[in-house]
Amino acid sequence: MAQSCSWSPIEGGITAPSGFQAAGITAGLKESGKPDLALLLAPQDAVCAGTFTTSSVRAACVDLCAERLQVSKGQCRAVLVNSGQANACTGDRGLIDSRRATQALADRLGVSVDQVLICSTGVIGVPIPMRLLLAGLDPLVDALDSGGGAAAAAAILTTDLVEKQIALEADIEGRRVRIGGMAKGSGMIHPDMATMLGFLSCDAGIPVNVWQAMVRRAVQRSFNAITVDGDTSTNDSFLAFAAGEPLPVDHFELIEQGVTLVSQHLGRSIARDGEGATCLIEVVVEGAASESDAQQMARTVCGSSLVKTAVHGRDPNWGRIVAAAGRSGVVFDAQAISLWIGDHHLLENGQPLGFDRLAASTYLQQRAEGSYLLDDTVLIRLVIGSGPGEGRAWGCDLSDQYVRINADYTT
Amino acid sequence: MAQSCSWSPIEGGITAPSGFQAAGITAGLKESGKPDLALLLAPQDAVCAGTFTTSSVRAACVDLCAERLQVSKGQCRAVLVNSGQANACTGDRGLIDSRRATQALADRLGVSVDQVLICSTGVIGVPIPMRLLLAGLDPLVDALDSGGGAAAAAAILTTDLVEKQIALEADIEGRRVRIGGMAKGSGMIHPDMATMLGFLSCDAGIPVNVWQAMVRRAVQRSFNAITVDGDTSTNDSFLAFAAGEPLPVDHFELIEQGVTLVSQHLGRSIARDGEGATCLIEVVVEGAASESDAQQMARTVCGSSLVKTAVHGRDPNWGRIVAAAGRSGVVFDAQAISLWIGDHHLLENGQPLGFDRLAASTYLQQRAEGSYLLDDTVLIRLVIGSGPGEGRAWGCDLSDQYVRINADYTT
Repeated sequence: MAQSCSWSPIEGGITAPSGFQAAGITAGLKESGKPDLALLLAPQDAVCAGTFTTSSVRAACVDLCAERLQVSKGQCRAVLVNSGQANACTGDRGLIDSRRATQALADRLGVSVDQVLICSTGVIGVPIPMRLLLAGLDPLVDALDSGGGAAAAAAILTTDLVEKQIALEADIEGRRVRIGGMAKGSGMIHPDMATMLGFLSCDAGIPVNVWQAMVRRAVQRSFNAITVDGDTSTNDSFLAFAAGEPLPVDHFELIEQGVTLVSQHLGRSIARDGEGATCLIEVVVEGAASESDAQQMARTVCGSSLVKTAVHGRDPNWGRIVAAAGRSGVVFDAQAISLWIGDHHLLENGQPLGFDRLAASTYLQQRAEGSYLLDDTVLIRLVIGSGPGEGRAWGCDLSDQYVRINADYTT
Repeated sequence: MAQSCSWSPIEGGITAPSGFQAAGITAGLKESGKPDLALLLAPQDAVCAGTFTTSSVRAACVDLCAERLQVSKGQCRAVLVNSGQANACTGDRGLIDSRRATQALADRLGVSVDQVLICSTGVIGVPIPMRLLLAGLDPLVDALDSGGGAAAAAAILTTDLVEKQIALEADIEGRRVRIGGMAKGSGMIHPDMATMLGFLSCDAGIPVNVWQAMVRRAVQRSFNAITVDGDTSTNDSFLAFAAGEPLPVDHFELIEQGVTLVSQHLGRSIARDGEGATCLIEVVVEGAASESDAQQMARTVCGSSLVKTAVHGRDPNWGRIVAAAGRSGVVFDAQAISLWIGDHHLLENGQPLGFDRLAASTYLQQRAEGSYLLDDTVLIRLVIGSGPGEGRAWGCDLSDQYVRINADYTT
């Protein structure tokens, strides 16, 4: 990945790439009066790849997205996002409402309904207030703007504390290519095939089957590597659009790298904004038999309640990390495991090392006092053998605040 | 299971069955000065069945137990339990210490070392203070008593708030048969093949291969159906001894029922005593394709952080229950799912029902104000189809207190 320096961060989020427009408005779906309806519109020649929750209980909008991506052969152009109601477990009306909302938007945009997608997020079991949503479509379409990324990123949030967006730019043999992204998610985060909601735009033309494959791989190394509370959602969706002048095949690898970087940034942002979190936890596993083994173990350690509470307590309680690795389902030799927290080396080939407990605790303390701008990442590194597999996962600490947020959510 | 009324509760715990002796003393292994060394001695003709953690990182004592059960062909008689140090991840000295402790005990008891087992529980990575343990063996053996069940049950605890023991008695064609049990466990509870530590005694003679099979099945329906925090331990062990006059084959089913009842009682007690818990959660899944499907879904729901915090907040937030069922890995038709919390019917064939939210919340509130004597069980029932599979799992709510206990455990 020597090309990674080719991508530089820029402003603009999801609308940074040429030709993409977005909008976010308040339609009254949320009682709080915060923005709650967003729209992303891709250029006419766009291709779209989507990955969705693997849960047996999927929201109506997820079923509809999957169906339309298939029917249109990935030629979708618009996605409507309503926040406040998940439209999951709403019975028969769930699908009826999703179809009605997208039909109305398709008519308003003058595109085929098969090209219009919808994502919903919020409380499960609560239907969308359709009168308010439909009334919001006119002002929403009127607000579409090539600088609308930030407004859209704000309108898709629920319990999130911060907006999650990014854009990258690269110069590819004199041609400027941009990739933008936005996401939401803070609780019920343990994506399986996608995040809560994530969106990506790219202004290079890529054949749809190539685009689908590279998006799947990027999702595996980003959204599918984060966990907040182990609860895979009913609504997890990631939609990625590419539209623009076709790019030669030999630059596809660079594009995939950019797509992966954007996806990892958004995934990390979701983990960092995990409900009640005070820091980001990054777990790296090396020396595994395969990348998937390494990732599975990294994610198990990241998701362990005992590891998460130890980090919250600034406690270098490494036994919990090793115990979580042990139950991850990955077979390895416990006598070959070595462990670091930050620069502190705690275990070498299964043998505990003497280490400065206070210094390790201070390392954890300093991360928790970090901010989104400073370094607030707790790094846990496990080497479990001499295999080629390396994997990463991202999560957050588990605080009293997480319990309070979730004990009081609907009542 | 029409015979279930045959078993009546009695006093005496693990030493209620004839011929079993136990002891519990303070050897100074715990800084708190609480009892920390226990011994269970089975009669000469005893057979022993054991199930252990499936973690790739196992404590030295677990390796030793598994080895000795094999070498002695299940003819083990004694088990030493030290609490305070898990003797897991202690490097090479872990196994050396375990062998030394059991050799000293075997010499003192005058039995073969292959018949002596050891279980350790406490902090990972900390070795056993061997001088104190060895000095404790004489007073421990001297304290052996046929009424020593309670003392042993106290000495195996770590962060547990209450002792966990039970004994049942049945009259089998004029012959009195008793089954006793004790267990410990409060955190790092998500057993896989066994609980943290559990012990069972039975004063009927059962062929060792029959005994092993019935213990395995009972563990599957009890300890392997509980979860506190999803973290399978490095030390999970369950050891079950049977010794006495041989019993005719046609009563084996009744014995298995008793073994299952004792194991379920102990498993539920561990879940109820989960760190920071204010109530027990029991999830029943019916209509699944198989018992294992039903149990897998029940345990996933029981282990969901969002379900646990909702129960803690007395919040009938049923969407989280359905979402957890959906991500359990069990394939089912979301349009066929029905759900009850207590007597409150919330969902019928995938359609949300109007329900009295306040009454459902009051139901949750009342369970949390229960006690070990009153009914403090929150019952969640899911019917997911018309299959024959039924399964149960037990867990507890997730409170602010859980985070505090685990953020501050070693520091």
